[in-house]
Amino acid sequence: MRTEISELGEFGLISHLTEDIKLTQPTSMRGIGDDAAVIDNKNQQTLITTDLLLEGIHFDLVYFPLKHLGYKAAVVNFSDIYAMNGKPQQITVSLGISKRFSVEDLEEFYDGIKLACQTYNVDIVGGDTTSSLTGFTISITCIGVANSDSIIYRDGAKDTDLICVSGDLGAAYMGLQLLEREKTVFAGQKDFNPDFSGKEYILERQLKPEARKDIMVELGKLSILPTSMIDISDGLSSDLLHICTQSKVGCRIFEERLPIDYQTAMMAESFNLNVSTVALNGGEDYELLFTVPLGLYEQVKIVPGIHVIGHITESNDQCKFVTRDGEEMELKAQGWNPIKE
Amino acid sequence: MRTEISELGEFGLISHLTEDIKLTQPTSMRGIGDDAAVIDNKNQQTLITTDLLLEGIHFDLVYFPLKHLGYKAAVVNFSDIYAMNGKPQQITVSLGISKRFSVEDLEEFYDGIKLACQTYNVDIVGGDTTSSLTGFTISITCIGVANSDSIIYRDGAKDTDLICVSGDLGAAYMGLQLLEREKTVFAGQKDFNPDFSGKEYILERQLKPEARKDIMVELGKLSILPTSMIDISDGLSSDLLHICTQSKVGCRIFEERLPIDYQTAMMAESFNLNVSTVALNGGEDYELLFTVPLGLYEQVKIVPGIHVIGHITESNDQCKFVTRDGEEMELKAQGWNPIKE
Repeated sequence: MRTEISELGEFGLISHLTEDIKLTQPTSMRGIGDDAAVIDNKNQQTLITTDLLLEGIHFDLVYFPLKHLGYKAAVVNFSDIYAMNGKPQQITVSLGISKRFSVEDLEEFYDGIKLACQTYNVDIVGGDTTSSLTGFTISITCIGVANSDSIIYRDGAKDTDLICVSGDLGAAYMGLQLLEREKTVFAGQKDFNPDFSGKEYILERQLKPEARKDIMVELGKLSILPTSMIDISDGLSSDLLHICTQSKVGCRIFEERLPIDYQTAMMAESFNLNVSTVALNGGEDYELLFTVPLGLYEQVKIVPGIHVIGHITESNDQCKFVTRDGEEMELKAQGWNPIKE
Repeated sequence: MRTEISELGEFGLISHLTEDIKLTQPTSMRGIGDDAAVIDNKNQQTLITTDLLLEGIHFDLVYFPLKHLGYKAAVVNFSDIYAMNGKPQQITVSLGISKRFSVEDLEEFYDGIKLACQTYNVDIVGGDTTSSLTGFTISITCIGVANSDSIIYRDGAKDTDLICVSGDLGAAYMGLQLLEREKTVFAGQKDFNPDFSGKEYILERQLKPEARKDIMVELGKLSILPTSMIDISDGLSSDLLHICTQSKVGCRIFEERLPIDYQTAMMAESFNLNVSTVALNGGEDYELLFTVPLGLYEQVKIVPGIHVIGHITESNDQCKFVTRDGEEMELKAQGWNPIKE
């Protein structure tokens, strides 16, 4: 079954896609259906973050199921709010859609967004839908709240602070490499249905990442408030450099401390990639990278899923990566480059 | 002079484009440079609105100067906030940019955004910049404030209320038609430099629209609070139908009351278009359409630049357009349709 978007028209499509969206947050005074959403707010800070995802740059619909894409597009925004020690509460969703999409395709995409919103207790409060002459375009803005005195910025890291990271690194990147390889193998065939057994973890990290809403809860139980924090989207290397630059400090992290999953290591080996490079530069981990005072070492090291990977150094030091054999290398930011792509 | 984006890299480009952006609003606690913007808020409502603009759909760079495009992209969001009786305070700007853009192009675009922000006292507090394989993509989210008891929604119109509109209608649409025609005339020629004398007003309405921040100030002096309000972006017809549908009422507007500028009428004639159809369906006017109780007629009719164009009727009536010769026609919404485009 395939319903053409033209059958519904713009307003029909929007109401069709949004009719079952309910406001669940006490602060959501008004959602979809007016010029702007209204959000109540008392003595707390409002956090706003936004992400733009473009087909061919951020995702490939050959292997990215639309429901997962919707889920991921929402979750990466939640992750930014958690990285400030905030709580995501609302999102707006703007989409540019091309003719080749059916209503069912967009339902699938929205189902993913709605699932993410249910899971993280977030309301969809607005957006903009338009046709696109080219690829699928997704722009999501997330609004969150935080207490003024517990927001964690990127610029608070101090000399001797411990550098901590949640979860493990590089898996989402290896999941992407695997998907890209299988896409080449299956090129021209009708169904994309490779055997992914034993590789579920790295695929899930790429296709259905989660935001670490649990980390600050665990740290809160121990009354630990990080001095700086960021979520790892561009890669450990780039994101740690953001903290160091903004905090005007240096750092030293250790190869042997990098948390890496077994599947990530196996897949890196099969691609002839250095797994540490993958962990440093892969990106899309959506783990939290943060710093805590040195004196908290005994407390922080026992929190499940948190790894101390190094420490902050003085401002005139560089940002260093120490290999297993003790060699020191300079950390480099990656970032995108439109010419290379 | 042309600087390639690759020379700066992602982070270099962002800091280059944003380094002179200053926070001017007392509520802007933290702007660009962290995972999310922080906005202080006490006993007021936060308003959020967002717009996605895609090349080839919403603008044509052949005749749309980038500075104007930046200005317009910001202003159309401010307009949504004013349409709630709010005050825009912050925006986030997300851009998808292709290789053919130079740093200077993006500077020009940002200059337009910055000019709009200065003019309307708004801060740029964040965003996302990415490369695009296809056209130029612009996603802007605007955050505003409003007092809880003076926000104006679309659903408050009541039977017998007067329907009012600010400014005049159809000019932006005729400006677009003129630009499209001259583009065809100049096709293949290097410089796009037609003679536009005597047509400045309709061009300005298309290329440099303003948001009506003045209207609520004027109405406020007379203690008039509209019962419903919307800004005219899709066209008078579509937007009035939004008010009627959400307020569960009908309406009757009169052709002879439609405010139309001389240049709009002249250009419509030269295109063999019915100027009333242009005023009803042209769109992009960014004027305010609102309703006030019938008893305020004597007060509202003397406000400069406000026109009473009809009145609200009972819910079981339809939405009617009354022509000069007394014929009644049904108002129809336009909206986009990806198949038609």
